[in-house]
Amino acid sequence: MSQPVDDRLAIDTIRFLAVDMVEQAQSGHPGAPLGQAPLAHLLFTRQLRFDPADPAWPNRDRFVLSCGHASALIYALLHLSGYDLDLDELRNFRQLGSKTPGHPEFGHTDGVETTTGPLGQGLATAVGMAIAERYLASHFNRDGFDIFDHNTWVIASDGDLMEGVAAEASSMAGHLGLSKLKVFWDDNRISIEGSTDLAFTEDVLERYRSYGWATLEIDDVEDLDAVDAVLAQAAAETERPVLVRARTHIGFGSPKQDTAASHGSPLGADGVKATKEKLDWPLEPTFHVPDGARAAYAPSIENGKAAHVAWLDLVERYRDAHPELAATLDAWRTRGLPEGWDAELPTYAADHAKIATRKASGAALTALAGRLPQLLGGSADLAGSNNTFIKGRDAQAADTHGGGNFHFGVREHAMGAAMNGMALSGMLRPYGGTFLIFSDYMRPAMRLSALMGQPAIYVLTHDSIFLGEDGPTHQPISQLMGLRAMPGMTVLRPADGNETVAAWRVAIEKTDGPVSLVLTRQGLPILPLAPDEVTAGVRRGAYVVADADDPQLLLLATGSEVPLILDAHRALAREGIRSRVVSMPSWELFDAQDPEYRAQVLPDSVRHRLAVEAGCTFGWQKYTGLDGDVLGIDGFGASAPAADLAKHYGFTAENVVARAKALIGDKA
Amino acid sequence: MSQPVDDRLAIDTIRFLAVDMVEQAQSGHPGAPLGQAPLAHLLFTRQLRFDPADPAWPNRDRFVLSCGHASALIYALLHLSGYDLDLDELRNFRQLGSKTPGHPEFGHTDGVETTTGPLGQGLATAVGMAIAERYLASHFNRDGFDIFDHNTWVIASDGDLMEGVAAEASSMAGHLGLSKLKVFWDDNRISIEGSTDLAFTEDVLERYRSYGWATLEIDDVEDLDAVDAVLAQAAAETERPVLVRARTHIGFGSPKQDTAASHGSPLGADGVKATKEKLDWPLEPTFHVPDGARAAYAPSIENGKAAHVAWLDLVERYRDAHPELAATLDAWRTRGLPEGWDAELPTYAADHAKIATRKASGAALTALAGRLPQLLGGSADLAGSNNTFIKGRDAQAADTHGGGNFHFGVREHAMGAAMNGMALSGMLRPYGGTFLIFSDYMRPAMRLSALMGQPAIYVLTHDSIFLGEDGPTHQPISQLMGLRAMPGMTVLRPADGNETVAAWRVAIEKTDGPVSLVLTRQGLPILPLAPDEVTAGVRRGAYVVADADDPQLLLLATGSEVPLILDAHRALAREGIRSRVVSMPSWELFDAQDPEYRAQVLPDSVRHRLAVEAGCTFGWQKYTGLDGDVLGIDGFGASAPAADLAKHYGFTAENVVARAKALIGDKA
Repeated sequence: MSQPVDDRLAIDTIRFLAVDMVEQAQSGHPGAPLGQAPLAHLLFTRQLRFDPADPAWPNRDRFVLSCGHASALIYALLHLSGYDLDLDELRNFRQLGSKTPGHPEFGHTDGVETTTGPLGQGLATAVGMAIAERYLASHFNRDGFDIFDHNTWVIASDGDLMEGVAAEASSMAGHLGLSKLKVFWDDNRISIEGSTDLAFTEDVLERYRSYGWATLEIDDVEDLDAVDAVLAQAAAETERPVLVRARTHIGFGSPKQDTAASHGSPLGADGVKATKEKLDWPLEPTFHVPDGARAAYAPSIENGKAAHVAWLDLVERYRDAHPELAATLDAWRTRGLPEGWDAELPTYAADHAKIATRKASGAALTALAGRLPQLLGGSADLAGSNNTFIKGRDAQAADTHGGGNFHFGVREHAMGAAMNGMALSGMLRPYGGTFLIFSDYMRPAMRLSALMGQPAIYVLTHDSIFLGEDGPTHQPISQLMGLRAMPGMTVLRPADGNETVAAWRVAIEKTDGPVSLVLTRQGLPILPLAPDEVTAGVRRGAYVVADADDPQLLLLATGSEVPLILDAHRALAREGIRSRVVSMPSWELFDAQDPEYRAQVLPDSVRHRLAVEAGCTFGWQKYTGLDGDVLGIDGFGASAPAADLAKHYGFTAENVVARAKALIGDKA
Repeated sequence: MSQPVDDRLAIDTIRFLAVDMVEQAQSGHPGAPLGQAPLAHLLFTRQLRFDPADPAWPNRDRFVLSCGHASALIYALLHLSGYDLDLDELRNFRQLGSKTPGHPEFGHTDGVETTTGPLGQGLATAVGMAIAERYLASHFNRDGFDIFDHNTWVIASDGDLMEGVAAEASSMAGHLGLSKLKVFWDDNRISIEGSTDLAFTEDVLERYRSYGWATLEIDDVEDLDAVDAVLAQAAAETERPVLVRARTHIGFGSPKQDTAASHGSPLGADGVKATKEKLDWPLEPTFHVPDGARAAYAPSIENGKAAHVAWLDLVERYRDAHPELAATLDAWRTRGLPEGWDAELPTYAADHAKIATRKASGAALTALAGRLPQLLGGSADLAGSNNTFIKGRDAQAADTHGGGNFHFGVREHAMGAAMNGMALSGMLRPYGGTFLIFSDYMRPAMRLSALMGQPAIYVLTHDSIFLGEDGPTHQPISQLMGLRAMPGMTVLRPADGNETVAAWRVAIEKTDGPVSLVLTRQGLPILPLAPDEVTAGVRRGAYVVADADDPQLLLLATGSEVPLILDAHRALAREGIRSRVVSMPSWELFDAQDPEYRAQVLPDSVRHRLAVEAGCTFGWQKYTGLDGDVLGIDGFGASAPAADLAKHYGFTAENVVARAKALIGDKA
C-alpha cells in the first residue's frame, strides 16, 4: 500500500468544492454537503464499488442521494472519483447547459443513478433498484457466477423520511427483506422551517424496525472510525434492509452551522471566509483540490476498475459455461427483444364477443410475459381488476427473489417509484397496475419516469365513469387529460381488443420513456377493421375508422367512445350526413406524425368537429378548435350502473347524433 | 332503564342490511361490513355522540369510515341511528340519484362526515378534524363553557394503513398529540390480492407507537365485552392519539369468510342464504329490521339529542357570558366575514418596485390573518418560500392548541387531507403552501377538496421555470394545466401585486370549493391599471389590460407572462400592429361569465390569438383554437438563472413579437 490516505483532507475538499460551487452560482444548498461530507467520503472510498470509466457497468454499486438538493456533494464526489465531470463543470454549477444542474439528473451526469430532488423519491426508487438487483441475480447467477451482486446505498434527509412515498417503499422493502439496500438517515435535526422538533418528533429507528429493517447508529459523523465501522456493519447485513441514523451537523464549520439558514442559500462571502478559516482551508484558490485529496480517491478508483475487469472476465467465462444466458444478458443490456417476442399476441375478429380492454390487456401481457422474463410487475392490490397477474409465475417475496409477480400492496406511489428503480437497471421492463383514478397517488413517480425517459408501463384500468357503481370517488374525470399534459408520457387509450394489443406492442417497443395504458372495466365490441390496419393506426396515434366522401363533420373519440361515435356515424349516414370517425388512442403518437398524415386524418378545412370522451372536455379543443364541440363530463360522475350513467350523461348514439347535427346546423 | 339492549340482534341487522344492499345492487362490498359490524355498532351506541336531527351540530363526535368501500355499513348505521336515510334509500344502494352511492360522499348523505374511498384519505382527513376540534376549543372554550369537546373516531382498513398519506398524517397526529383522535384498524388480515402476508407484514402497532400514539388491542370483535372495554379505554386517553388493533373476520358468517373473495362482490343468492342460515337470520323479508334492533339504537339517539339540547343551552348561556365570542361563533358557523375583513389588504401603485406574487400573497395573507382567526395554515416545510408564516401567531403544537401557524413537515399529501378535515368543521378556513411542482404529491387530497366543495386554499409558489436554478425536478410544466383540468378547483395565477390581492379576495369569499393560488418566485412589475380595475378584472377571470382599435391579434397570458405580452404589445404597436392584451388569471371564473362578456374580451372574429405561458402549451387551445399559437414549454425545463432560461425558451418580448408577426403573416 502507498501513503496512508488523508481522509480529513479529502472530506474538507468535498466541503469546499460544494461551498465554492454554491457561492459561484449564488444559488444552491451548502448545508447538507458540509454535514454529510465525512459519511459520503467514507462510503465512496471504503464501500462503493464502481468504475468511472463505465458508469453503466451493470454490477456497480448504486449510490442514491435522495436529498437531491445536496447536489453539490455528489458532483464533488463524482469529480474526485474520476467520473467525466471536470472542475469547469463544477464552476458552472446550476448554469445552462452544464452537467451540474440544481438537482442531480439521471442521464445528464455520469454517475447520477436517478433523478432526485422531489423528496422521498430517491429512497423509494432505490427500493426498486434493490429489487432489480436480486431479480437479475436470480435470473442470471449460477454456481460460481455471481454476475449480479451489488448494494444500493442511499443518503436520505429528514424530509425524505417524512414523505409518504418513502414510508410506503420502506414498508415494502422490509416486507421483501431487501438486505442489499443500505440507507443513511442524515439526522441533522434541521428542516427548512427550523428544528425538526417543530414537525418531526417520531422515533424513526423504531418505525424502521417495525418495517423489519435493521437499524444502526452513528453518533457523530466526524468520528471517522465509527463511521467506518458502521459502514462495514451495514454492508455485512444479509437479512434485512439497513437504516443507519447518522448524526450530522448541517452547515458544519460555517457560522450558520446547525441552523436552517445554512440549508438553501449561499453562505455569502463572509460566511465562506469564516468557514474556510474555521476549518483551516485556504481562502484561495477556490475550487481547490489538493493532491492528497485526489490521492485519497485513487485506491477506490483502482479497486473499482479491478472489480470491473474481474467481472468482465467472469462474464467471458459465463459466455462459455452458460451461452444462452449470456446471450440473454447481452440482449437485455441493449433492451433487445428476442425473435418471436410478439408471436403469442392474440388478435380479435370483428365478430368476437365484447371484451373489456383491461381483459385484452391481461391476455396481451400474459402472451408477452411468457417470452419476456424481463417484463415484471404487478398491481397496487388490484391485480384481479387490473389483469396484471401472470399465471404460472412466482410472486416476489423475501425468499423468492426471482418472482415476476409483485404484490405491491396498497402503495401506488411506492409502486411507481420502485418501477423507476427497476427500469433504471437498464435491463428490466417493469409494469404496475391500479385504477386510473389512483394514478393521482403516484403522479410524482410517473413524472420522474418521464423526466428520466424510463420505460415503465402503467396499467390504468377502470378508466371512466363507466366503472359504474363505485361512483365519483373512483371515476376519473381529469386524470386522462392530466397524463396527456405530462411531457414525455405516452398515453394510449385503446378502443377494442386489437387496439389494446397494438398498445402493448407500442409499450414494449418503446424503450426511452414511460407509457400509460388506459383501459376499460366494461366490455367493448371489436372494431370492424383488420387487426393489421388497427395496429398500423395505433402506431400513428390516430386513424380513420369509418369515413364518408367529403365529410361534413369529424367525429373524434378514444377508447370506449369509439364504438359510440361509430354508431352515431351510421345513424348520421342514414340521415344523409357525411361524417368521418377518427379513433385517437394516442395523442402523443399522433402529434409526432408528419403534418401531411395529420392533415389527412384531420383536414384543416373541416371545422365541424365533435369529440366524444367520457372525461373532462378540457384539452380536446386542441383538435376541435373554437368551432367544434366536445361531449364529455365536467363534474365528478355519479354512482349508478354504467348503462344508467351513459344515458344520464348523454353517452348515447342518439345524443351524439343530436350534438353533431346541432354543430352542423349552428355553424354550417 | 328499559329492556336490556340486544346488541347481537342489532349487529346482525347491520350485517344483513349490508348484505341485502349489495345483493340488491348486485354490486358492492359485503366483506368489511360483515366483519366490522360488532365494532361499529358498539361505537355508535356506546361512544358516538350525535343528533340525527341536526347532522351539522358543531360539537357532535365525528365518525369517519376510512375504508369507504364498506359504505353499506355506514348506511345501515345511519339508518338505525335515525338519520334521514330510509329503507328505500338502502334498497336503492348504488343507484342513480340515491343517497347511498358506492362510496360515502360528504354533502350527499346526512351523517357522512367526509368522502372516503380513495384509501388513506379518511384517516388523514380525520387528523384535520381533530386539529379543528382543538383549535376551535382553544378559540371559543372558556371556564365552564366547553363549547367544543368531541372525539373523532375512525375505522381504517389495512389498505388505509398501507397508504403514504395515512403514514404522513399519523406521524403528524402523533407529533401534535391529537388525543381526541381514536382509530380502529380493522385487522382482518385480508387485502384484495389475498392474505396481507403477501404485501403487508410490518408491525403496525409498533409503527404507531413510534409516531407517539397509544395502542390498544381487541383480539376478537365478536367478544362484545372486550370491545366495550377497549372503546372506553380509547375514549379515556387524553395524551396521545389512539390506534386500536381490532381483529375481525372479513365476510363473517359467509361461506367466503376470511377470504379476499368476500371483499368486493355480492355473496350471490346461495351465499346470502348460507350466511343468513349460519347466523340464524330469516331469509325473508330482505332489509329486515327487527324492533329489537331499533330499540338498541333508541338510547344513543336519546342521549345524543339530550347532549345536543344541553349544548344549545350552554351556548345560550355563553351568549350572555361571552357575547362577542358567541357572535363570532355564529358568524363562523355561517362562514360569515366580519366587517372590515379586507380593510388591511394592500394595494400597489403602478410605480411600485417589482414584487413577487408569492410576496404579495404573504402580505395579503398577513393582512387577512389579523382579522380572520378562522384563517389558519402553514406550509409543508417551505414557509419562508411560500410566505405562509404569520408573524405574531403561535405555532400549532402538542401543547399549543390555538396555534394558527402550522408546521406540516415535508408531508404535502397529509397537509392537503388535514386541510380538508379542518374545512369540514364548517367554520375554519385552512390554507397550505408548497411549491407548485409538489401539488402533484397532494393531488388526491386536492381532488377531494373539490369533490366535497370544501374551501381549502392552496398556496402554490415557484410556479414556473422562472424559479431558475433548482431545475427540472422543481419546474412545474403541466401542474398548472392539471389543476385547471380538475372539476371544482378554482385556479388563480395572478400577474402582479394587485391581482394577487384580488386573488386572495376571491379565495376568502369563495366558501363552496377550493382555490389554488399559483404564484411566482420572481419579482413582477405592477400592471399600469388602477387596483380597482384589476380587482374587477380578476373577479371576472380575464380582462383586457391593454388594447388597440380593432385588434388584429389577441395576446393572452397569465401571471408572470402578462408583463411580457404587454411589452410585446407595445413593440407591435410601434410597428403598427394592433394587438389586445388579455390577462387571464382564472379560467374557471372567466368561463363562468356570461357569453357576452366572454365575447367582449375574446371576440370570436379575431382568430389570431397568441397565448404565452411558461408551462405546457397543452390546454391553451381552448382559447387559441386551431388558428392560434401558444408559446410555452413542452419539455421539463432546465437548471439555470431565470434570465438565461427566459432567453433560452424564448420568453422575451422580441420572440413574442416574432411569433405574433408569424401568426398574422401566416394566416392573415
